[in-house]
Amino acid sequence: MTLAPTFSLDELNRMAPSAISAVLADVFEHAPEVAVAAAARAPFDTVTALHSAMLDEIAGWPSDQVLRFLNNHPDLTGPGERRPDLTPDSSREQAGAGLDRLHPEQAQLLAAWNREYRARFGFPFIICAARHSRDSILAEFARRRHGDPATERLTALAEISRITALRLVRKVEGRGAPNAHGQLSTHLLDTATGRPAAGITIALYLMAEGGSEFVTGSVSNMDGRTDTPLIAGRPIPNGTWELRFELGQYLSGQSPTPLLGMVPIRFTTSEPEAHYHIPLLFTPWSYTTYRGS
Amino acid sequence: MTLAPTFSLDELNRMAPSAISAVLADVFEHAPEVAVAAAARAPFDTVTALHSAMLDEIAGWPSDQVLRFLNNHPDLTGPGERRPDLTPDSSREQAGAGLDRLHPEQAQLLAAWNREYRARFGFPFIICAARHSRDSILAEFARRRHGDPATERLTALAEISRITALRLVRKVEGRGAPNAHGQLSTHLLDTATGRPAAGITIALYLMAEGGSEFVTGSVSNMDGRTDTPLIAGRPIPNGTWELRFELGQYLSGQSPTPLLGMVPIRFTTSEPEAHYHIPLLFTPWSYTTYRGS
Amino acid sequence: MTLAPTFSLDELNRMAPSAISAVLADVFEHAPEVAVAAAARAPFDTVTALHSAMLDEIAGWPSDQVLRFLNNHPDLTGPGERRPDLTPDSSREQAGAGLDRLHPEQAQLLAAWNREYRARFGFPFIICAARHSRDSILAEFARRRHGDPATERLTALAEISRITALRLVRKVEGRGAPNAHGQLSTHLLDTATGRPAAGITIALYLMAEGGSEFVTGSVSNMDGRTDTPLIAGRPIPNGTWELRFELGQYLSGQSPTPLLGMVPIRFTTSEPEAHYHIPLLFTPWSYTTYRGS
Amino acid sequence: MTLAPTFSLDELNRMAPSAISAVLADVFEHAPEVAVAAAARAPFDTVTALHSAMLDEIAGWPSDQVLRFLNNHPDLTGPGERRPDLTPDSSREQAGAGLDRLHPEQAQLLAAWNREYRARFGFPFIICAARHSRDSILAEFARRRHGDPATERLTALAEISRITALRLVRKVEGRGAPNAHGQLSTHLLDTATGRPAAGITIALYLMAEGGSEFVTGSVSNMDGRTDTPLIAGRPIPNGTWELRFELGQYLSGQSPTPLLGMVPIRFTTSEPEAHYHIPLLFTPWSYTTYRGS
Repeated sequence: MTLAPTFSLDELNRMAPSAISAVLADVFEHAPEVAVAAAARAPFDTVTALHSAMLDEIAGWPSDQVLRFLNNHPDLTGPGERRPDLTPDSSREQAGAGLDRLHPEQAQLLAAWNREYRARFGFPFIICAARHSRDSILAEFARRRHGDPATERLTALAEISRITALRLVRKVEGRGAPNAHGQLSTHLLDTATGRPAAGITIALYLMAEGGSEFVTGSVSNMDGRTDTPLIAGRPIPNGTWELRFELGQYLSGQSPTPLLGMVPIRFTTSEPEAHYHIPLLFTPWSYTTYRGS
Repeated sequence: MTLAPTFSLDELNRMAPSAISAVLADVFEHAPEVAVAAAARAPFDTVTALHSAMLDEIAGWPSDQVLRFLNNHPDLTGPGERRPDLTPDSSREQAGAGLDRLHPEQAQLLAAWNREYRARFGFPFIICAARHSRDSILAEFARRRHGDPATERLTALAEISRITALRLVRKVEGRGAPNAHGQLSTHLLDTATGRPAAGITIALYLMAEGGSEFVTGSVSNMDGRTDTPLIAGRPIPNGTWELRFELGQYLSGQSPTPLLGMVPIRFTTSEPEAHYHIPLLFTPWSYTTYRGS
Repeated sequence: MTLAPTFSLDELNRMAPSAISAVLADVFEHAPEVAVAAAARAPFDTVTALHSAMLDEIAGWPSDQVLRFLNNHPDLTGPGERRPDLTPDSSREQAGAGLDRLHPEQAQLLAAWNREYRARFGFPFIICAARHSRDSILAEFARRRHGDPATERLTALAEISRITALRLVRKVEGRGAPNAHGQLSTHLLDTATGRPAAGITIALYLMAEGGSEFVTGSVSNMDGRTDTPLIAGRPIPNGTWELRFELGQYLSGQSPTPLLGMVPIRFTTSEPEAHYHIPLLFTPWSYTTYRGS
Repeated sequence: MTLAPTFSLDELNRMAPSAISAVLADVFEHAPEVAVAAAARAPFDTVTALHSAMLDEIAGWPSDQVLRFLNNHPDLTGPGERRPDLTPDSSREQAGAGLDRLHPEQAQLLAAWNREYRARFGFPFIICAARHSRDSILAEFARRRHGDPATERLTALAEISRITALRLVRKVEGRGAPNAHGQLSTHLLDTATGRPAAGITIALYLMAEGGSEFVTGSVSNMDGRTDTPLIAGRPIPNGTWELRFELGQYLSGQSPTPLLGMVPIRFTTSEPEAHYHIPLLFTPWSYTTYRGS
């Protein structure tokens, strides 16, 4: 899913400005001139310095140029609305947030809000979709469409900073990268035996309006952990999640019948770049969960 | 829902045998003669002694009389199958277990198993429905229909002992009653403040094949408990349950956004006459649950 | 230890004023006139109303009479200093707080502070000793001796209100009694088996400057509780305590060797009239404790 | 404290046999010939292979040579008994277990048991002192001195295997080293805030017969851990320990006064080469501890 970055920062620093511009051309939506301007300032000490150089370029633009740039961003689109002018990056980001699975009424609402927002603010609603679930995008939209124009313009630029940081770390790998990814991990401990619990099936669901969607699954290893984090290499979309731990098989054969079978842990995340470590300490008759570190 | 018993044991002991017989006539299904025989042995020290007197009567019957008695019990019936010969007690008991909400395929399966079971054992499948959920009745039926005849006959009589104990404690109140009821309770403690958590909405669901069914709800009081137990005055049907604690409102207004909103606790019960105390100790970022006492 | 109250409120209400005065004569230290005045206002709806009537009497006194009354209270005395004019109540209260076990340096300090306090405020240091441990009395004394005179006078009267409430509920039992007693209880649950843990030896220690003092002990019953609370029928002295749960025997015979043997739970109390419920949920490899309710 | 190994396995493998023999001469007590024999079998794939080569040499010895070798080991000696023939390694190992802090009666007992053991078995009591506390050495001695001669001889050789593995990994570093070290670590999580708890003072005590001995201390870092494990690079001596977490300062300033100040966690270890991870999840009013991983 997550592509490895194509270049290391050191490789990039050794390239000619024109080659750097080509690598970074589509980081800022329909604005390759940002990459050209930044390339002139190579080399960069850190990936964050490179990102800052690109953001600085926009910060120096006159107001009407910024407005044209904002207007080059696409509307959020529901299912069946895919437009030919959507860049591959935008298309992937919007699909990742589940916008292609909106219910018809939600899609209608989204289309109405898009029109209304453009009419009110003069540019489209811009949000870093990778940091959100479908429900939290709609919640943000519901809130922001009542904002004041100056704040919305700043918010749009802040979201563009997040969008471009994510695009950048997909292309350039190296020291001092922006903190653009989160992590979700778990750990299963059997406190009746004092041992990690191996072989337990774990499923992660995103609780969406009207149902839950399977996101990923794993099986705990000998240390009671999953071999790789449940989520890594991307932001954790703001949303409500359910981890389901299938203890039934592990606890079977005990007498009397254990109290626990499938244990659901439901929680809400609101820091997409944070590490959420959600362990489960359990016995056949009890469990404890918490945000760990 | 639960009717108060009509008579105290002391009142019953002061009645004429014929009056006692009348009160107890329908405790044993279509077998008022059991009540007549037991009435002759009044007075009774305890309600359990009265129940034993009735069971003793059956224990003394010849085999063919027992078989006729077993055959006077109704089949478990699915929705739309209510038969005119179903006693009010049986009808209520079967509905309580949710048999009137079987899916069509489950109802067909039940009907097929009823026929098969009668053909194999010579009497209907008898189970104390009040101690079971729809799913656990089907699971028991699936298991018992492969049993050997002698064991099934003893199992049927054991189930009748449970059915009649429940019917008896609805009619006669007093010392030494059979342990026919269970209890489900909870307790909410906010361990971040060291105080009981008041005002939290609690809902209890029974997890059935293909969905969950709301059973009862409550709101925690100043001591973090419900004013009355979530289940009391009846057996706890064997099944998988989900307690849902709505912590969202209680924890709102905290920064950063708490990890927890609705906390589901899923557990399986297998002792209908036991006390299941399932507390929740929580903070905005953690919780612990266990079978307490 | 705790004597049963001699009279019920109803009995008291039926007595002649002179008899009431006699019963209550020594509730206020060396001030039987308080009882005489209150007796004239009988009958009383509640024990608290009786206590209020006595406090009202003092509230009506001119300032110099209050000062004489305060001066009729004894100094706190260390070991070997027992004075002939100490009333039996004061003697018992001071001993209960462990003042007779002060170290020589602490006793010297106490004597010096007594002199200094009297010189500064014109009356002795008054504190409801039953609500304190030796260490917390010294800590209070260290704090209050720097107070301003008006505050200290009010504090002394508030302490007398607490002292007399305790003395009153030892003499008069009945509805609406002042909340003068606290409670300390525990509960042992084996969460590896989902059952209360019976037969576990429990000891309660008060952690004093320079060591710990055994206060009381018990053994958990079939419900994992002690038959009577560890502390009841008196205030819980402010202090740091240690509950020691001897799990070693209970967990023995397991393989591998359990992590836990004697589990100490140390905690500090600061609400003498509150209920401190301190359960222990444990397995051979883990435990949880919390302030319950 | 722990010296870095002098040589890597690769360096050793490149040495001449005489140089290898010199490096390893004192791994086996007063038996440099073991090193000479093993050196002839260089190079070694792993440190464990090297250790096995040395053990193999002894396994090939005739019985009387083994007996002489066992007799070249020193007695366990109490305080004031340091003998000139004790090798530096043995001296350090015995002091590490606290044998120089034995009470006079314990020292007398030890001396008596030493004589008795030699008389009974024909060689001194040999134990890998680094894997034991003073109390567990005495407990092992009390148990083993009643053993049968064949078992004791095997036990002595097994202990020598452990002693020499420890000495070897201090001299030779590299792949496939014997698992001779344990680890003790902790982690502090404030579950009221969902954050690691930084700045908390942690002290580790060994609970010895008649008192506790401070072993090491640390302060939790931003991740709620200690910068280095509390114990690492050596076995965890079998014994009963107390971790003391000073939460008082961290929780101060809260109202009402928190229940918790210094939290003692007492536990017993019995696997010297294992990792004991003992976290503390706490709020001002509750805590949970467990053996983690």
